[in-house]
Amino acid sequence: MTREECLTRDRVDPIAAHRGNFTLPPNTIYLDGNSLGAMPKATMARLEEVARRQWSADLITSWNRHGWIDLPLRVGGKIARLIGAEATEVAATDSTSVNLFKVLYAALEMRPTRRKILSERGNFPTDLYTAEGLTKALGNRHRLELVEADKLPAAIDDDTAVVMLTHVNYRSGALHDLKALTAAAHDAGALTIWDLAHSAGAVPLDLTRANADFAVGCGYKYLNGGPGAPAFLYVAGRHQAEFVQPLTGWLGHAAPFAFETSYRPAPGIARALCGTPPILSLAALEVGVDSVLAADAQALRAKSMALGDLFIDAVEGQGGDQLALRLASPRDATHRGSQVSFRHAEGYPIMQALIARGVIGDFRTPDILRFGFAPLYIRHVDVWDAAAALIDVVKSRAWDRPEFKRRAAVT
Amino acid sequence: MTREECLTRDRVDPIAAHRGNFTLPPNTIYLDGNSLGAMPKATMARLEEVARRQWSADLITSWNRHGWIDLPLRVGGKIARLIGAEATEVAATDSTSVNLFKVLYAALEMRPTRRKILSERGNFPTDLYTAEGLTKALGNRHRLELVEADKLPAAIDDDTAVVMLTHVNYRSGALHDLKALTAAAHDAGALTIWDLAHSAGAVPLDLTRANADFAVGCGYKYLNGGPGAPAFLYVAGRHQAEFVQPLTGWLGHAAPFAFETSYRPAPGIARALCGTPPILSLAALEVGVDSVLAADAQALRAKSMALGDLFIDAVEGQGGDQLALRLASPRDATHRGSQVSFRHAEGYPIMQALIARGVIGDFRTPDILRFGFAPLYIRHVDVWDAAAALIDVVKSRAWDRPEFKRRAAVT
Repeated sequence: MTREECLTRDRVDPIAAHRGNFTLPPNTIYLDGNSLGAMPKATMARLEEVARRQWSADLITSWNRHGWIDLPLRVGGKIARLIGAEATEVAATDSTSVNLFKVLYAALEMRPTRRKILSERGNFPTDLYTAEGLTKALGNRHRLELVEADKLPAAIDDDTAVVMLTHVNYRSGALHDLKALTAAAHDAGALTIWDLAHSAGAVPLDLTRANADFAVGCGYKYLNGGPGAPAFLYVAGRHQAEFVQPLTGWLGHAAPFAFETSYRPAPGIARALCGTPPILSLAALEVGVDSVLAADAQALRAKSMALGDLFIDAVEGQGGDQLALRLASPRDATHRGSQVSFRHAEGYPIMQALIARGVIGDFRTPDILRFGFAPLYIRHVDVWDAAAALIDVVKSRAWDRPEFKRRAAVT
Repeated sequence: MTREECLTRDRVDPIAAHRGNFTLPPNTIYLDGNSLGAMPKATMARLEEVARRQWSADLITSWNRHGWIDLPLRVGGKIARLIGAEATEVAATDSTSVNLFKVLYAALEMRPTRRKILSERGNFPTDLYTAEGLTKALGNRHRLELVEADKLPAAIDDDTAVVMLTHVNYRSGALHDLKALTAAAHDAGALTIWDLAHSAGAVPLDLTRANADFAVGCGYKYLNGGPGAPAFLYVAGRHQAEFVQPLTGWLGHAAPFAFETSYRPAPGIARALCGTPPILSLAALEVGVDSVLAADAQALRAKSMALGDLFIDAVEGQGGDQLALRLASPRDATHRGSQVSFRHAEGYPIMQALIARGVIGDFRTPDILRFGFAPLYIRHVDVWDAAAALIDVVKSRAWDRPEFKRRAAVT
């Protein structure tokens, strides 16, 4: 593979034109769309519409006139198409952590005699913290058991209430077999919760065919919804009547504007809502979801896998191994999300030096250099150039400067 | 009082100029700032800055470079000035309902042997629903007791863990004596939670002097933060070390980017945070809070009381009583928030007919016509004209048309 060949691949890329739908800064190779997706060009116009033509002009009447009240379920219905769910099974609301709290509570309620929440040791910490917080609130009747990924099937037993996993590991990018693990959980009478933070918008999903129970996910990564965009949650249609969650705010009520004294859950997914949703952020999320829906999901996945393979080949082909860059992601693209990670003992300053050169990835403690390939707007040539920059930074020890070693608040 | 006198009052109003800081539609008298505050003129520029110059240009690095990570506590610190708290006692995050869940949980944990949550029968339903949801999650060990407002002091007993009240009643506008009820609760060994949804930005507050324990409030009413703006929560400094809440997401962790497996609460108010905050909505909230901080709080309150008195006088002086319009708010402005409500059996179509004429208030079941007076941008003449329109609509039976009787999704 050469840089020229990368340019050729970009010329024949069937989804190359989507890059033009995003505003990307010049002289920057952005490989952190898995932390914060790029801004669609349509977002600013939508914000202007919502702020200027709706909020400021029509004020409170916008809730009806401009359908703000429907936005959580309308955006949820669009996200449903990306994860293989019915439109009536998904709501866009709150944060991933808050949504996880809701579905984990619901799952435990549905398996009242079981005591175990099973997860992966390397799961994203907020998911584990949420389980900790809920378990404590429920009087420590449950225990959170953490095992390595390959030990999961064997750890599902008849005391397991719920298997709670992130589909794509945030550090390694390793992809769980969602369908097989869901089936294994069901065989043992357990339920499943899938955190799709690093999957939705990058890895085609079919929650219906996988017979998934619950899921949550993030709006600001591959969905391009903007910083801290509202998250989503999925409740399988068959569980909705039984779905009880503790954050019983007025928008989850069967008749929010009847102002009844007692809570009656809304029918369907609306009972997953709680308080009033942040409309500006939710409108931006809708634009982001549209930016993904505009592309063919299989073409996105094919390009995503090709970009990851290309990055591994380019780093290793240019001597990454001799430079102590060790692949921390599955080599087989079918077992990987849309990111590739390398380990290096000096990972933190290396990443800062790369960012200073305009190659933006991120660092994950203790030694992970993480590169995300958002196939909507990343080109083959970007991946090639990023690999060359990484090799050069390590080889030249360009990272070995005090300013690259100072830790920032957000890594 | 005459319309001319109202114009004169507007000419000498010391805070009249603030109206120029808001975009308000022509031919509209907006008396629903208590449901959704008007848009500050500065909001659009701020959204452009955050979207175009931060998100799209600096992408993930904006979390550090543009201080996004500090936004919940920075905005909280500003809200603190409006409610008489220390900057380190308030965070802007999540929705009011979610925040109430957190502080109610914390309060119950702090009074483990007590079983009663005391509230007002007419409290805003989402607050009651939240208590219901939490109580159920905690195994029905607690009971929610609801009494009429005047029975509250007598109902505080030594089984009362927490007195949970909304400072300004959403229907009548009646104002609780926050300081006296807090003292009464403390005398009985109970804690207090104040929902400041209809107070913050309209009624000067001094939580420190009142020795308040916990509070929550809303960003999209008098704080002009935009539709569904993030809410806030207050935890008295003296309780923060003991403050434990169940929504233990990563941003409440002592070291979010250390990605530790177990939860360790951050010191101080940061432990009240959960997931990643919606930055676009949070930035708009900051502009809204700034719009309120720009005016003198005592001048705001004085004008707010005068506007309410004027409305009552104008409606009653023009024969409201003969038209079966019954005042549903305290007549004494010192016992009222920044709203006045009248009852009428045909309240719903009357309000729709008023809205069709450009006088926007709202209806609250079963028969409440609610008019909010946001003193930052409402003029005396607006109040006079709104009263005249109300009288005319009722007198002429202009409301008696099918299109005004059809209930919308959001009332």
